Amino acid sequence: MRYDWIFATTDYGLEDGFVATCTGVMGRIAPHARVVDVTHAIPRADVRRASAVLAQAVPYLPAAVHLVVVDPGVGTTRRGVAVTGGDSVFVGPDNGVLPAAAAARGQLLAAFELSDPQYRLADVSSTFHGRDIFAPAAAHLASGVQPAALGPRIDLATLVRLPEPVVRLSSDGLLAEVTAVDHFGNVQLAGTAADLAASGLVPGDEAELTIAGRREAATVARTFGEVPAGDLLVLVDSAGHIAAAVNGDSASQRLGVAAGALVHIARRATAGGTRQA
Amino acid sequence: MRYDWIFATTDYGLEDGFVATCTGVMGRIAPHARVVDVTHAIPRADVRRASAVLAQAVPYLPAAVHLVVVDPGVGTTRRGVAVTGGDSVFVGPDNGVLPAAAAARGQLLAAFELSDPQYRLADVSSTFHGRDIFAPAAAHLASGVQPAALGPRIDLATLVRLPEPVVRLSSDGLLAEVTAVDHFGNVQLAGTAADLAASGLVPGDEAELTIAGRREAATVARTFGEVPAGDLLVLVDSAGHIAAAVNGDSASQRLGVAAGALVHIARRATAGGTRQA
Amino acid sequence: MRYDWIFATTDYGLEDGFVATCTGVMGRIAPHARVVDVTHAIPRADVRRASAVLAQAVPYLPAAVHLVVVDPGVGTTRRGVAVTGGDSVFVGPDNGVLPAAAAARGQLLAAFELSDPQYRLADVSSTFHGRDIFAPAAAHLASGVQPAALGPRIDLATLVRLPEPVVRLSSDGLLAEVTAVDHFGNVQLAGTAADLAASGLVPGDEAELTIAGRREAATVARTFGEVPAGDLLVLVDSAGHIAAAVNGDSASQRLGVAAGALVHIARRATAGGTRQA
Repeated sequence: MRYDWIFATTDYGLEDGFVATCTGVMGRIAPHARVVDVTHAIPRADVRRASAVLAQAVPYLPAAVHLVVVDPGVGTTRRGVAVTGGDSVFVGPDNGVLPAAAAARGQLLAAFELSDPQYRLADVSSTFHGRDIFAPAAAHLASGVQPAALGPRIDLATLVRLPEPVVRLSSDGLLAEVTAVDHFGNVQLAGTAADLAASGLVPGDEAELTIAGRREAATVARTFGEVPAGDLLVLVDSAGHIAAAVNGDSASQRLGVAAGALVHIARRATAGGTRQA
Repeated sequence: MRYDWIFATTDYGLEDGFVATCTGVMGRIAPHARVVDVTHAIPRADVRRASAVLAQAVPYLPAAVHLVVVDPGVGTTRRGVAVTGGDSVFVGPDNGVLPAAAAARGQLLAAFELSDPQYRLADVSSTFHGRDIFAPAAAHLASGVQPAALGPRIDLATLVRLPEPVVRLSSDGLLAEVTAVDHFGNVQLAGTAADLAASGLVPGDEAELTIAGRREAATVARTFGEVPAGDLLVLVDSAGHIAAAVNGDSASQRLGVAAGALVHIARRATAGGTRQA
Repeated sequence: MRYDWIFATTDYGLEDGFVATCTGVMGRIAPHARVVDVTHAIPRADVRRASAVLAQAVPYLPAAVHLVVVDPGVGTTRRGVAVTGGDSVFVGPDNGVLPAAAAARGQLLAAFELSDPQYRLADVSSTFHGRDIFAPAAAHLASGVQPAALGPRIDLATLVRLPEPVVRLSSDGLLAEVTAVDHFGNVQLAGTAADLAASGLVPGDEAELTIAGRREAATVARTFGEVPAGDLLVLVDSAGHIAAAVNGDSASQRLGVAAGALVHIARRATAGGTRQA
């Protein structure tokens, strides 16, 4: 199977030629494939954010090879792997960055270690495996090389995985971990629409967010414009996750939270008493 | 008519997967089309800057579909529209971001509301119409769908338009609004070469800029190198607009101005008296 | 000869439409060619950094035309040139930005001045030669126009060149100039693996870095993971240069250095005395 698309997600930044170098390496091997940047602005070594950002995008992309390089362990003994998820293949270090993204595309089918030297550059540096190992592997996959040709099959159960983020119902709402903060400062939480529904919160409800003991009033809503500019809301975001947002401003600044923080969302008792269902 | 090019202008930033998601959505619908980023660094909700940046680029681009998503009203009742300008089509929210850019390409020919669900994704979120409505519409247009197929024709006079920026002659020069500040800190003004000529200022003149009562000396010039490094100049920029610049430095920092500020440019009386024409 | 790839390196930033404008200009002339960004985040007018970043990437890229626009002298008498290096052609201002990058691709073969108006846009501005002169020249070259058709041949000896960065052996190690600091804060030095070897330093050695009289202990290593997180190391980087790095952090912040600084690396006397070879 050939792939026409390669998507790239790294923490390389855009100031250097690292991304173009990988694109060039892939272009020499798989000139037919289009290379699209997912993002190269993952903070240094932030495996968790790379996983979250990519998992959110992959359901909307064409079948593709994914080059995913956030690799604090480059040059150490961590494995390089190719993981097939649904109709796509995810190439990167075995440090937890791949499985959730691959699973967001479809069932995890198999994983292979990137060990065959014929699918690497001739000289492999100890610090830039994106260029020397991962990009060549991705491009060979795009050109029709079978994942199994790259190296020995790996038991999927042995792949490094990130811990599941916290999400659980409480007596008056739910507690959820911040999984990602986006460009606009929207605060994405671990739970989904189903979790929000299970917590009993519905659009129109007044809610109270508690972060590290500090409380903020918010409205459960369907979109930003349902609350006045500058107001805090809780909604189901475009990835199907619960999120806290501010209409026209940054919720992460308002709440003072980053990924990993815990947010408790509770229905707020109002003067009028019981909600009419 | 098919289009080989789709240009994208948004305020999505590059940290998340939003841009790649739209590119992927378009790639599934219109795999033949190339997607090129104009910029995704429009400040949040800055419709005016998006319009200015795009209007400046479009005369130099191939015939294309333009995906333009700076959309503070996402999820509210503002319309989504496709506007044809010359040989290109501009897709985005009806909040003023499109008409000037479309007009910079050619005559505004027609506008259509994006209402036919067959040209949207199956599930439309309330917060990411770039992915769910605008990108699919852009890609279908690139694939040859007629703009009129997307939904009902809109009277061009009903499109939301941004106010015209201020530019007017004064007794000793001209007053002009800052329309955009670029990466280098060059300060673009609303007027054109014709306005500068009408004001009587010509290259070589010494001028005085007045911003909020503060005065700065500048030279009217043709290019940066005509004044010493660090000096302020007034020139006609590469988009044909009057601009204030500093040779090798940032005029916006020197002048303390941003888009929307008013700058008065006057010919400066010099010891030598009358200029020789 | 036609080229399928055009790589672009500029200081234009990504906030404006400058890059897309050049891409569009090239797309109209050479619709078959793919345009890939090397970087547009070169600091304003930093010819030296553009040269270093590009020289490092080119050995890994396909044969290509390179559009390189870091051009503080735009609109002055500096020449625009096309320089052939190995199988690739480099187009940009004759201010030193091209020769090292071209030489990194292969032998410098010839240079031509960009003077024939048929390979420029019809109207040439005085401030945006990227759009009006360099991008058209690059695209025409990609379409098969011979470099010699662009204008008169230039004696290679007359091309402006950047000074060679300092690297020299000392009695107890070597002195080297910082050539570039990357996104991760890794500090690249002018010397190569051969220089490091000549200095007598080998992986495992304890070293002392001296910058402007300040001293820092470091370990000579092969990769980041050989030293504890937060420790300073000296290694040969993925471009074959000597570099100072911190495992998991920024060496440029630790050392307080930027490009142009001088770093002395010496073998550190240890309690155990002489190293066993």
